[in-house]
Amino acid sequence: MAVTVDDKTVAELRNLADRLRIDSIRATNASKSGHPTSCASMAEIMSCLFFRVMKYKLSEPRDKSSDRFILSKGHAAPILYSAWAEAGLFPVEDLMNLRKLDSDLEGHPTPRLNFVDVATGSLGQGLSVACGMAYVGKHFDKASYRTYCLIGDGESAEGSIWEALHFAGHYRLDNLCAIFDINRLGQSEPTSLQHNMEVYRKRLEAFGFHAIVVDGHDVEELCKAFDEASSTLGKPTAILAKTYKGYKFPTISDELDWHGKPLGAKADEVIHAIEQQMQPRTSTGVPHIAEPVDDAPEVNIDDVRLSAPPAYKMGEMVATRLAYGTALAKLAEHNPRVIALDGDTKNSTYSDKIKKVSAERYIECFIAEQNLVGVAIGAGCRGRTIPYVSTFAAFFTRAFDQLRMGAISQTNITCVGSHAGVSIGEDGPSQMALEDLAMFRAIPGSTVFYPSDAVSCERAAELAGKTKGICFIRTSRPNTAVIYENEQAFSAGKGHVVRNHDEDDLVIVGAGVTLHEALKASDMLMESGIKAAVIDPFTIKPIDHDLLVKEATRCNGRVLTVEDHYPEGGLGEAVASTLAEQRNVIVKILAVREVPRSGPPEVLLEHFGIGAKAIAEAAKKLVAL
Amino acid sequence: MAVTVDDKTVAELRNLADRLRIDSIRATNASKSGHPTSCASMAEIMSCLFFRVMKYKLSEPRDKSSDRFILSKGHAAPILYSAWAEAGLFPVEDLMNLRKLDSDLEGHPTPRLNFVDVATGSLGQGLSVACGMAYVGKHFDKASYRTYCLIGDGESAEGSIWEALHFAGHYRLDNLCAIFDINRLGQSEPTSLQHNMEVYRKRLEAFGFHAIVVDGHDVEELCKAFDEASSTLGKPTAILAKTYKGYKFPTISDELDWHGKPLGAKADEVIHAIEQQMQPRTSTGVPHIAEPVDDAPEVNIDDVRLSAPPAYKMGEMVATRLAYGTALAKLAEHNPRVIALDGDTKNSTYSDKIKKVSAERYIECFIAEQNLVGVAIGAGCRGRTIPYVSTFAAFFTRAFDQLRMGAISQTNITCVGSHAGVSIGEDGPSQMALEDLAMFRAIPGSTVFYPSDAVSCERAAELAGKTKGICFIRTSRPNTAVIYENEQAFSAGKGHVVRNHDEDDLVIVGAGVTLHEALKASDMLMESGIKAAVIDPFTIKPIDHDLLVKEATRCNGRVLTVEDHYPEGGLGEAVASTLAEQRNVIVKILAVREVPRSGPPEVLLEHFGIGAKAIAEAAKKLVAL
Repeated sequence: MAVTVDDKTVAELRNLADRLRIDSIRATNASKSGHPTSCASMAEIMSCLFFRVMKYKLSEPRDKSSDRFILSKGHAAPILYSAWAEAGLFPVEDLMNLRKLDSDLEGHPTPRLNFVDVATGSLGQGLSVACGMAYVGKHFDKASYRTYCLIGDGESAEGSIWEALHFAGHYRLDNLCAIFDINRLGQSEPTSLQHNMEVYRKRLEAFGFHAIVVDGHDVEELCKAFDEASSTLGKPTAILAKTYKGYKFPTISDELDWHGKPLGAKADEVIHAIEQQMQPRTSTGVPHIAEPVDDAPEVNIDDVRLSAPPAYKMGEMVATRLAYGTALAKLAEHNPRVIALDGDTKNSTYSDKIKKVSAERYIECFIAEQNLVGVAIGAGCRGRTIPYVSTFAAFFTRAFDQLRMGAISQTNITCVGSHAGVSIGEDGPSQMALEDLAMFRAIPGSTVFYPSDAVSCERAAELAGKTKGICFIRTSRPNTAVIYENEQAFSAGKGHVVRNHDEDDLVIVGAGVTLHEALKASDMLMESGIKAAVIDPFTIKPIDHDLLVKEATRCNGRVLTVEDHYPEGGLGEAVASTLAEQRNVIVKILAVREVPRSGPPEVLLEHFGIGAKAIAEAAKKLVAL
Repeated sequence: MAVTVDDKTVAELRNLADRLRIDSIRATNASKSGHPTSCASMAEIMSCLFFRVMKYKLSEPRDKSSDRFILSKGHAAPILYSAWAEAGLFPVEDLMNLRKLDSDLEGHPTPRLNFVDVATGSLGQGLSVACGMAYVGKHFDKASYRTYCLIGDGESAEGSIWEALHFAGHYRLDNLCAIFDINRLGQSEPTSLQHNMEVYRKRLEAFGFHAIVVDGHDVEELCKAFDEASSTLGKPTAILAKTYKGYKFPTISDELDWHGKPLGAKADEVIHAIEQQMQPRTSTGVPHIAEPVDDAPEVNIDDVRLSAPPAYKMGEMVATRLAYGTALAKLAEHNPRVIALDGDTKNSTYSDKIKKVSAERYIECFIAEQNLVGVAIGAGCRGRTIPYVSTFAAFFTRAFDQLRMGAISQTNITCVGSHAGVSIGEDGPSQMALEDLAMFRAIPGSTVFYPSDAVSCERAAELAGKTKGICFIRTSRPNTAVIYENEQAFSAGKGHVVRNHDEDDLVIVGAGVTLHEALKASDMLMESGIKAAVIDPFTIKPIDHDLLVKEATRCNGRVLTVEDHYPEGGLGEAVASTLAEQRNVIVKILAVREVPRSGPPEVLLEHFGIGAKAIAEAAKKLVAL
C-alpha cells in the first residue's frame, strides 16, 4: 500500500505534538504534580493518532462506531486531556484545572470524563480492555472501528500485558493496534530492556503480532506505521516506538530522576525552547479529524431476562454452579448481547452451557484470569455487551487489581465464581475460595450474590445482568436441595426467613452450603428444645439490614452466622457490621479459621467448624449466655 | 560437552517413568479423584530429574545445599509423591492415602510434606518462586545447588509465568532450569498453542532463555537436555518437552475429556498395557540418587533487630513510609540475610534505603507485582532470607492469589504497602489503597500492622521480621506527627490508649492518618463538652480484643471507628466483629463509602467523611443516641 504524508501534514502534526507537550507542562505545573516527561515521550504518537489516524466524533466521544483509544499508561493523563482539548472538545484553558477536586481532569483518567472508556493508572491493564473492545468490534459489532492502545515500556513488564498480547495474537485481532512508548526510563531506574528494540520486536512477533519498530518522534514514520497497521490483515499490529522521556525538554530529556515531577521553575525555559522549534501555524481553527463509518449496530443491554422461569422440584438436589449454567443459557436465549467468558474451567463452572445457545458468544480466555476480567471489562464498555465471566472463585483473586480498577471504570460485569470453600473437598486449599467474599465486598458499588439453591441462583444470574456495577455470584460445587418454589421473587438486598417458629431462641444466618447445614442444625436444636430461625440473606452486599434487625430483635438479640469462608470480610462481618449500631444484639461468627486441607466435603465442614453439629453446639452456647 | 547416557540407565529411567505412571493411576483410583493423565505426560521428565539429574539428600529433603524442584502444575501432585516414594522417602503403599483427611498427601502439594517447599495448585506461580530460590542460590548463598521448575503448557498462559521468565532472563539465572510439559490439552479444550513447539521456542528465546525442544518421552533426549542446561552459563535454560497427556494409556492418550479424571474401571487394563512394555528390573533396591555438594552457608534468620532504636522528637513530622525505609536499613545492618524487593517504586516506598547498607541486598523486580511477591516467597523459602517486599499498597492487590498461596505455603515474608487511602491526594483513586486491609486480613495467619507514627512504624518493621506468616505493614504518604517516645514498647495484638479522660463519653479508634484526625476531633469535642478517648490499635490483625472491650465498657459502650479504607473488611469491621459478642456495645464505622477522586489530601479526608470534623460530627450523634 502506497503511503504518502504530505509536508504540510507532517509540519502540522509536529506542531501539534509540541502543543500537546507544552499543554502537559503547563497543566502539571498548575497542579504542582503529575508526569510531564511521560507525556513528552508520546507527544508525536498522540498527534498522529488524534489528528490523522483515528476516526471519531467530537460531538459524541463514546459513539458506537468511532475508533477507540485506551491510554494504558494512565499517568500520562495530561496529554490525553490535551489531545481532546486541542481537538476542540473543551477549552484548552480547562487543562489548568488538572487534579483539582472540582474538575474531572483527575490525576489518572476515569470515565467521569466522556472521552474515557475505562480508568487506567494501575499499570498493565489497558491492553486487556482494548482486546475486549476489539473482540466485540470484530465478532459482535462486525463494524469497522479500530482500537488503539498505548502502553508504556515500564508497564510492559506486567504479566497482564503478555496475557493480552497472547489473546490478541491467538484471536488474530487485526482491528487492534498496540503502541509501545519505549522511553527507556521507569520511575526509579531505567527499564530492564531500555532501548533494546530488537528484543521487543522478537517478543511481539513471537506473540503473533506484526511488529514495526519506529522512531517515535518522527511523525512521518509513525503515520506510515499506522497505515501499515490498518492494512495488515490476520494479525494485530504492534508499533514499537523508540522515544525519549521528556523529549525536547533541554537538560531533562532522557535523564533519570524526572519521573512524576512537574518542571516548576524550569517550565518557562523549556516551553520557550520548544516554541523556538515550532513552525508558524499553517491553518487556523481546530485540526482535521476523520469521520467514522457509522456501521456498528444499535444494541439493547437493558432487556435482561430468563427466557423461561426456573423449573425445579422442591427438594431436588442441584448444584448452584449447574443452575448458573442453565440460567446463563436462558439469558443468552433472550438477549443476543449476553456473552460468556471463562479461563478454561467452562466445564466446571458450567459456563459452557451458553455454547448450546450460541457457540460464538463464548470467549475462551485460557488460563489467564487477569486478562479474562480485563477482556470482559472491555467487552462491556459503552454498553456493547452483557458479560458474564466465570472461573473458580479462588482464581478471581488473580484479578483483584483489575476488579478494583473496574469499579473506578464504572464497569458493568458479572463475575461468577464456583468451587467456594472447603465444601469442594479433596482438591485441597489451593482450589478453595475462602476470601472471595471479602474481596468482592471490598469493591465499591459491588453487589455480592450468594444463592443457596438452584431457583435463587437462576434469579441471581438474571438480577446481576440488570444490576449496574460489578456483580459477583458465588456458586457451590456440591449438590444442594431446592428450597424455593419456582415462582419465588428475589431482589438484591432482600433476605428470606427460610425457617422460623413462635418465640425463636436465636436466629442463624447461613448461605450456600452452610444454609443447608443451618437447617439441619435447626432440626437438631429442636430436639434439645431450642428454637432456631434460619435466614438466607441472598445477597451479602447489600445485606438485608432491616430483616436482620427485625429478626435479631425478635430472637432475644442472639444471632449466629456460619460461612464457608475465612472470618475476615465475609458473611459474619457483614452481619456484625450492619448490626453494630444495635444495642443488645450479639453476633457469634462461625467460619473457617485455619488453612484447610483435602478430605471429603461433609467431613471437612464439621472438621472446620461450620457443619450442622458445630452450628448446633455454638447455638447451645449462645442461648446459654 | 560430551554427554553419554548408557543403555542400562536409559532402560532404568524408562522403567522408572512407567512405575511413576502406574503409581499415579493407582493413587488417583484409590482417591476417586485427581489427574492421572496430567501425571503421565511428565513421567519421563520426573524419572530423569529424580533419578539422574538432581542432587539431593533423601535424609533431609529441605537440605540447604540440595537441588530444588518446584512442581508449578500442582495438580500433578500424585507423580511428585510417587517420585519421592520410589526414591525411598516413604513406602509406595502410602500413595494409596492420597487426598485422605488424615494424610498429608493432599490433592495439591503443600509444605505439610517435608519435600515440598511451597504449595502449588493455583497455576502459573511456581516459576516466580523458583526464580526467588535461584536468585538466592546464586547471589546470597553463592552455592552450587540448582533449581528446577516444571510448568504445564496450560498454565503458561498466565502472565505471572512471563513476568518470571523476564526476571530470570534479565538476571541471567543460569542455575535455573524451567521445564515445560507441553501436552497439548487443557482442562476444557486444547491449549491455544497446542504442539506448536517453534512458537514456544521463539518466545522463550526472546525472553532470554537457552531453549531446547525435546521429545518429552525420550529419556535420552531429556538427559542430554538437562546436561546442556547445567553447562549453559550466562542464561537460564528452558526445556520444551513435547508430550502427550495420558501417554501410554491406550484409547486415552492425547484425547480430550480426560482432564482430572481417575481411570476407574479402565485402570487395570491400562496398567497391564504399560507393564507389558516394561523391562524386567535391572537392579534391586532404590534407584541411584546423586549427592549434593554441601556448599550453602548456615544462616540465622531468627536474629531480627533494629541496629539502633528509633530516634525521633515528639511531634516531629515524619511519614511512616520514610520511617519504614529507615527501619529497613537498620534491620539490614543487623542481619545480613535481611533483603528488600520492590517493583520500581523504591524511591516512593523508601525501600531504596537498604541500598545504602548493601546494594546487593536489594532486588529490583520492575513493574510486575505477581512475580515480585512470588520471588519474595521463593527467597524466604527454607529460611534462607528475611524478605521485605514493598510497593504501593494498592498494587499488592495484583498479587492476592500469590499471597493466598503464600499462606498455604507457610511463607514468612513482610509486605509493606505505601500510599494508603485518599490521603495520597492528587494522584486519584487508581493509586489509593482502600481495600488492602480487607485483603491482608483475609489471609490466614497474617499479621496486619498499621503504624500511626514513625516510632511505631520502625517497631512494626522489626516485629514483622520476627513474626511467622505473612505480615503487612500499611504506611502512609503524608507526614504525621511522632506521638510515641522512642522507648515505647510495641507488640502485635497490643493497642495503645493515646488519649483518655475521666469518664469518657466515647472511644474513637483510628489508625495511620485517621488516628491524627481522631486526636484533632477529640480536641474539637472537648470544646463541646464531650470527652473522647482515642485508641491506636497498632495491629488490625490481631486486634486488641481485651483493650477494646475494656475501653468500650468504660465509655458507655460507645465506639467510633474511622479508617482511610472502604468500610468492608477494614478497621471498622475488625472492631465490630471483635466486639460482636458484647451486649450493650455499639460501633459506628466511618470509612470511605464511594470511589474517591483527585484533590488535596486534607480536603479529601473531610470530603469522604473521615477527617476531624466528620469524626466530631459522628461522635456527637453517637453520644446523643
